[in-house]
Amino acid sequence: MFKSEIKIRVRYSETDRMGFVYYGNYAQYFEVARVEALRTLGVSYKEMEDNGIFLPVLEYNIQYLKPGNYDDEFTIKSSITEIPQVKIRFDYEVINQNQVLISKASTILAFLNKEYKPVRCPENILEKLRKYF
Amino acid sequence: MFKSEIKIRVRYSETDRMGFVYYGNYAQYFEVARVEALRTLGVSYKEMEDNGIFLPVLEYNIQYLKPGNYDDEFTIKSSITEIPQVKIRFDYEVINQNQVLISKASTILAFLNKEYKPVRCPENILEKLRKYF
Amino acid sequence: MFKSEIKIRVRYSETDRMGFVYYGNYAQYFEVARVEALRTLGVSYKEMEDNGIFLPVLEYNIQYLKPGNYDDEFTIKSSITEIPQVKIRFDYEVINQNQVLISKASTILAFLNKEYKPVRCPENILEKLRKYF
Amino acid sequence: MFKSEIKIRVRYSETDRMGFVYYGNYAQYFEVARVEALRTLGVSYKEMEDNGIFLPVLEYNIQYLKPGNYDDEFTIKSSITEIPQVKIRFDYEVINQNQVLISKASTILAFLNKEYKPVRCPENILEKLRKYF
Repeated sequence: MFKSEIKIRVRYSETDRMGFVYYGNYAQYFEVARVEALRTLGVSYKEMEDNGIFLPVLEYNIQYLKPGNYDDEFTIKSSITEIPQVKIRFDYEVINQNQVLISKASTILAFLNKEYKPVRCPENILEKLRKYF
Repeated sequence: MFKSEIKIRVRYSETDRMGFVYYGNYAQYFEVARVEALRTLGVSYKEMEDNGIFLPVLEYNIQYLKPGNYDDEFTIKSSITEIPQVKIRFDYEVINQNQVLISKASTILAFLNKEYKPVRCPENILEKLRKYF
Repeated sequence: MFKSEIKIRVRYSETDRMGFVYYGNYAQYFEVARVEALRTLGVSYKEMEDNGIFLPVLEYNIQYLKPGNYDDEFTIKSSITEIPQVKIRFDYEVINQNQVLISKASTILAFLNKEYKPVRCPENILEKLRKYF
Repeated sequence: MFKSEIKIRVRYSETDRMGFVYYGNYAQYFEVARVEALRTLGVSYKEMEDNGIFLPVLEYNIQYLKPGNYDDEFTIKSSITEIPQVKIRFDYEVINQNQVLISKASTILAFLNKEYKPVRCPENILEKLRKYF
């Protein structure tokens, strides 16, 4: 299993009039979390895209357990629990500065080439991931 | 079953560098869709909040079947398939101007009072919903 | 002078914990307003981009006169007061459902070709605009 | 003059189909920049709000000099060039990882109390600022 974590400070723009983080904004945190997880592995998502491999999200599931507040410092834990093939799954946990689990989520993404056809996970990612499995 | 639908034009701000609607932005469309579904029923979500009933999202699941494009005109179909109790579930379909199903999603929301304690669905909503079941 | 107006309903996602529309979200409303202004003229911004003409914003100025609220129905008035050359200027007013002026703004955009070089305003836009001047 | 700077990594969600940072998203960066500027001074914006002082934006001006790209690491420089009275002005510069000036901006904000009436800049902020002037 490959694990990675990042810190994110909640922005004012990410809150809503209920006073909490808007439910739609967590998706951005998970995007940042998986890009940084790949960077930790030694893979630049931007370079991968510049080289013609795209990773659109196919599925996204999230449970909101506790509200997130303005100025909270979230730890976002990401994990890859299976060697990716034509898809890659990430699982996430959002934990606030008081060690409270705020949210649990997962995303499934596809590897696509420039013609938006499914392709297998690039070998450079697999190589870096294998040592964790 | 109660059904409602709205039209939404994709904004430039909602696209990303892949050229499609960013995966996190669909959550906003569903928020608009359920507020308009309630308005169709004769319920103003804003008034409900002003009267101390809040509807935070507890769970959100979405499948992205086809990409959404800038300037697409989406039809968002919402449905309530069960009489709500302390929670309310909405199911959604996003269909583009070419009648292509873009996405399927669902949300589960809780009814909370001013102290953020769970309460039953307000009677005025139940009354309006009952005729559809 | 060419004038156009649209209605926009404030989304929950566009509010912040102060309870009002987040100051950064008005930019989206103006983007929608100018795209619809062009559509009224008979010009599709999307087609223009697909044909290799881009309109990035060079300058944006806004005054926030009154707060915008959730579920407000804004009228956004756009106007083009000068025949565009290599740049186009739009002026905007945001008025709420109680006829209160919420905000005044302007944007200056450049016409760029595929190589991101400045070009003159396309003839089909000029042709349609001329009758208003 | 008081100066402060922060680093911000451009998120995928912040780009648009032109491939660059959406013009409306810089407002979020400046919000983060001024909150961190205050934190550097020893002032928590969140605590200030919790104590009943709000800082809505009255005016925002921005010039976009060069496009911002996905995954860019921006340095946002903020400065306060005058002792605030009932308003506070921040000036900003956005510089990318190649030392290119991307954007220049300013915001003017008002100090308001719980009843949204203008008040003078709180003494604890003035005290901390005075040593820079």
